[in-house]
Amino acid sequence: MSVVIVGSVALDTVVTPAGRREEALGGSAAYACCAASLFTQARLVGIVGEDFPQEHRAFLESRGMDLSSLAVAPGRTFRWGGTYFDDDRERRTDFTDLGVFAEFSPVLGAVQRQAETVFLANIHPRLQLQVVEQMESPRLTLADTMNLWLDTAREEVMTVLDRVDVALMNDSEVRRYSGVRSIIAAGRRLRERHGLLSAVVKKGEHGAVVVSADDLFFAPAYPLDSVTDPTGAGDAFGGALSGYLDSQPAVSPATFRLAVLYGTVVASFVVQAFSLDGLRTLTRSDVDARLRELLAMIRVPEFG
Amino acid sequence: MSVVIVGSVALDTVVTPAGRREEALGGSAAYACCAASLFTQARLVGIVGEDFPQEHRAFLESRGMDLSSLAVAPGRTFRWGGTYFDDDRERRTDFTDLGVFAEFSPVLGAVQRQAETVFLANIHPRLQLQVVEQMESPRLTLADTMNLWLDTAREEVMTVLDRVDVALMNDSEVRRYSGVRSIIAAGRRLRERHGLLSAVVKKGEHGAVVVSADDLFFAPAYPLDSVTDPTGAGDAFGGALSGYLDSQPAVSPATFRLAVLYGTVVASFVVQAFSLDGLRTLTRSDVDARLRELLAMIRVPEFG
Repeated sequence: MSVVIVGSVALDTVVTPAGRREEALGGSAAYACCAASLFTQARLVGIVGEDFPQEHRAFLESRGMDLSSLAVAPGRTFRWGGTYFDDDRERRTDFTDLGVFAEFSPVLGAVQRQAETVFLANIHPRLQLQVVEQMESPRLTLADTMNLWLDTAREEVMTVLDRVDVALMNDSEVRRYSGVRSIIAAGRRLRERHGLLSAVVKKGEHGAVVVSADDLFFAPAYPLDSVTDPTGAGDAFGGALSGYLDSQPAVSPATFRLAVLYGTVVASFVVQAFSLDGLRTLTRSDVDARLRELLAMIRVPEFG
Repeated sequence: MSVVIVGSVALDTVVTPAGRREEALGGSAAYACCAASLFTQARLVGIVGEDFPQEHRAFLESRGMDLSSLAVAPGRTFRWGGTYFDDDRERRTDFTDLGVFAEFSPVLGAVQRQAETVFLANIHPRLQLQVVEQMESPRLTLADTMNLWLDTAREEVMTVLDRVDVALMNDSEVRRYSGVRSIIAAGRRLRERHGLLSAVVKKGEHGAVVVSADDLFFAPAYPLDSVTDPTGAGDAFGGALSGYLDSQPAVSPATFRLAVLYGTVVASFVVQAFSLDGLRTLTRSDVDARLRELLAMIRVPEFG
């Protein structure tokens, strides 16, 4: 089994109340693929420029992922700069420099096209569609989306949503998308409108809600005393969720619940450090230990 | 077994995005006692003026509670007015008219003094202390507090906290009290500083967190599509929690977890209607049915 993940690979300049990093490894596919690699064979589909540092490539390879569909093109790697503020889940984008992404058109190899699972991480929905269309017969297709594309490419977002099994959105996005304030009602509307298996609403430090046809699940986030860098939390959540599902023989409601909890646990490691440092030496057994801790905090007694 | 609950009995004028009610039955003890009465014998300690409507008294009696320590004094019943806004957990207090509360000094009868459980609902900490001091040997003492008293009577709040087993605070209060942003760290500080059995942090629509010496529990709120009137949610949460614990042979971590979930479930009925209307005809089996629904949404699979 393997999961194909398309998204950005970037050099991030990030400022948070905990400090500042320049040109650190980032991008939705980098976060998601590192997270998924904890559970299964992950295959990254993306592009970097000729300036992409060898140390970043070496790090990604060291995490066991397949980089054969990571294109290298003449020009600059995608760069993003952002600032986070205290007590504020919103971030300010300081700059976006598309670089080689401006002309990217993903081409998948045979091994990628045959993958069982696809995660369309955050990236322009046109690129998400190009990847979906190349897949032969995936068992499960998941897509992440965000405000930006709802504003600038709404029709393409709708087409992506019609093509996938599972959609991930954060709470403000799903409210805006659906026009209703209740997260559950909003998730239901999203699920029904696009015939999804599940809509997953990410609530940051408050966890996530899964709305499926036959299941409704509330997952808390793993609680942290402090957050160093929120970048990539949602990408890692989606990557871990996709990777864990890929590793399982079937996608049942129970499997999906555990996948979402794995997502929040891996995301909690990500935000404890800048860039991908929280995943640098992380092992599956570290993840399982924290998952056990989380399960102990939420397990409910038997009841009548 | 029975629970003594001291707090306010009020006539509330409330404006919410869903409408407006004038001189409706309210007050922390009214909400908490109605909630506790679903589980055990509740005994209300409070005061009203001679203008307190007979229909409100009849309603409280109809819910099975003991009103023999509800004093009636010459003068006006406590009145409170507040406005709630969309997408905002904070409320604006429009007016407070203490009335007979200005001179209240609670005196408990023999049956109240011998109760096994005491819940000090939100009211001036001096009154909370007067009640604690009259109790003979309660098995469990719980106290609710709020910002107002942390500002105006901090020393008395500290004394109350030193005297009780369980403290309830909302998230903004416990952060302010402790000076730390992490709810868990704040709850731990509160618990340790006052030698509490448990600190319960209420997070409104995001549920509650229990920090005990030997347990940490995350409870979600029962999800609602919309809220009609948030007044009394925290009071009902505390009343249901106290009432359920009173009804149990012992207070174990598992019992406490279930008590907190009962608290969120009863609070969810309260906020679906104005004033106490959500509890008017509510039965224990309605509550159990919703609890089962909530348990189904949060139950986690077995894991290695």
